[in-house]
Amino acid sequence: MKHLITLPGVFHLEGGGTLRDVEVSVRTWGRHRSSATLICHALTGNADADEWWGGLFGMGRVFDPNTSYIVSTNVLGGCSGTTGPTSKPTGADEPFGPDFPSITIRDMVHLQKAVLDELGVTHLDLVIGGSMGGMQVLEWGILYPDRVGAIAPIAVGSAQSAWAIGISEAQRHAITSDPNFSAGRYPPQAPPADGLATARMFAMCSYRSHESFESKFARTEDAGTFGVQAYLRHQGTTLVERFDANTYLTLIDAMDSHDLGRNRGPREAIARRITQPALVVGITSDVLYPLAEVKALAEVLPNATFAVLDSPQGHDAFLTDTTELDEIVQGFLAGLGRSVPLGSHGSA
Amino acid sequence: MKHLITLPGVFHLEGGGTLRDVEVSVRTWGRHRSSATLICHALTGNADADEWWGGLFGMGRVFDPNTSYIVSTNVLGGCSGTTGPTSKPTGADEPFGPDFPSITIRDMVHLQKAVLDELGVTHLDLVIGGSMGGMQVLEWGILYPDRVGAIAPIAVGSAQSAWAIGISEAQRHAITSDPNFSAGRYPPQAPPADGLATARMFAMCSYRSHESFESKFARTEDAGTFGVQAYLRHQGTTLVERFDANTYLTLIDAMDSHDLGRNRGPREAIARRITQPALVVGITSDVLYPLAEVKALAEVLPNATFAVLDSPQGHDAFLTDTTELDEIVQGFLAGLGRSVPLGSHGSA
Repeated sequence: MKHLITLPGVFHLEGGGTLRDVEVSVRTWGRHRSSATLICHALTGNADADEWWGGLFGMGRVFDPNTSYIVSTNVLGGCSGTTGPTSKPTGADEPFGPDFPSITIRDMVHLQKAVLDELGVTHLDLVIGGSMGGMQVLEWGILYPDRVGAIAPIAVGSAQSAWAIGISEAQRHAITSDPNFSAGRYPPQAPPADGLATARMFAMCSYRSHESFESKFARTEDAGTFGVQAYLRHQGTTLVERFDANTYLTLIDAMDSHDLGRNRGPREAIARRITQPALVVGITSDVLYPLAEVKALAEVLPNATFAVLDSPQGHDAFLTDTTELDEIVQGFLAGLGRSVPLGSHGSA
Repeated sequence: MKHLITLPGVFHLEGGGTLRDVEVSVRTWGRHRSSATLICHALTGNADADEWWGGLFGMGRVFDPNTSYIVSTNVLGGCSGTTGPTSKPTGADEPFGPDFPSITIRDMVHLQKAVLDELGVTHLDLVIGGSMGGMQVLEWGILYPDRVGAIAPIAVGSAQSAWAIGISEAQRHAITSDPNFSAGRYPPQAPPADGLATARMFAMCSYRSHESFESKFARTEDAGTFGVQAYLRHQGTTLVERFDANTYLTLIDAMDSHDLGRNRGPREAIARRITQPALVVGITSDVLYPLAEVKALAEVLPNATFAVLDSPQGHDAFLTDTTELDEIVQGFLAGLGRSVPLGSHGSA
């Protein structure tokens, strides 16, 4: 079901800013709120988790609407229905654009909690997500521990690494130096398309791997253009069609802010407060959040199960290798002593 | 010694183009031409190998001018003294700019051979280089096998991978979409500085590693800017000051063309023609030319020694970890039964 939920009044942000009458685009599946799951999306994702994580949906899978109430929201600062840089402030004629306030992963989580209150969901059996979604998952474990039964952060660490911040920075430079960016005051019909496309092209490299590109493209050529070149150009163009540059900047800033210890205390000590059962999934070929970083997160969480998704697909394996991921998550849930519906997909 | 060597007449290029009266910037060290070494530089390098590979120079090191004649040239298409896009065609008032013809790694090698003829060097004991330099090293093994005693390709494969081509393509897009690029017809005082800086920022990420950035920067901040952000911006700015955008494009195109099999036959069969003793060095943390790719090159060369440079520094370890690299190369040379001068650096 699609919902557009408005939260009347003032929403306070960690950075000191405020937003009024925040709107949130929400999808829900199923009716049995006694067992609820929250799905958190990554950078360019949205509330339509059945589209970008379809392999995990269905009878006998992790997201089974017959047995569970499943919720996904477009994050705060997004451009797929939730209040963000493309939204107009209450009573204004022009969108926020570059005046949209700085937000953090924690702000995203507070908003999700408010939405779940509206939906009448007081307890989540599982909060799950990869990459930026995984950052939200971890913050759920700290901000609302009493509401969360288990968490599954995937392909993420306890803080955004210098490496990931560096890769963000190159993308930020690509977008902000596009003359069309105009300090963020571009008209919707003339966005910084080249800069956003460049950022996406580089991001796609960081989401994939040497091995996945080699097996998919090698040195195939068409009229002097290598297959991988055409693929990346296409990725750049299509992102420009579906995503907004100010939003992209808002969200990579939020990702770079990710640090469980920020304004709280020593990162490891804070992470140890996450006492829920945690399934931490690392991907063997992940360049952006390498396995060692994810493993280090698992080692610091007091009640973690570390699982390795063995895949050549790189960081994006959490989106592409859903059969294996479904098995991993179901195995974890089964180990918690939950009744996991197995449906037609076989034995435990 | 610095040389500027002009090769009068027509220089034919693999792609069908020609150049006239090609000039080459050359550095030489030592006098004993009976034992000669050629150093090949990487993308933004130049003939001043004692500056960017200083750790390998000196008494008892791989490059010892007392016992060997050492040559390094700025590559064809470069912008540090050799004919390239910033040069003026014979008799013209304007530089080649975007009209500079397409070149390949093989063209670079043919030019180096002509330079060595001018210098009276008919035999090279060793041809060595990393990254784009390693591509030239491999082509030396195929194009002039009778002139080369041994080769040392470092951090490179038998062909540019789809992964590396993809990373090139994102950089190419950054440069060519900068409005200042003007299809390559920018004035020297108004180059596509933003695009070239973005490209360099991406490239620097690919040259380093998660671990090196984490140990150097972690999440250190100064006035709201992370250390890694300031570092990458500085890297972008300084490259713009010392490098030309058309040249950058010319050279990454040449790198993307790298394929030992191109227009020759099956790549592995061609690689097997390189029968000289070959020291193939891979770097454990290399993201751009991962260890597995370099190892695969070593496995196909019939007379190769594979050495692992164990370093967290990423691809650039061949430039930063020179003590270890010097040991590796000296060990290889000693194994060839050469008289390797050990100087003050100890025993064999």
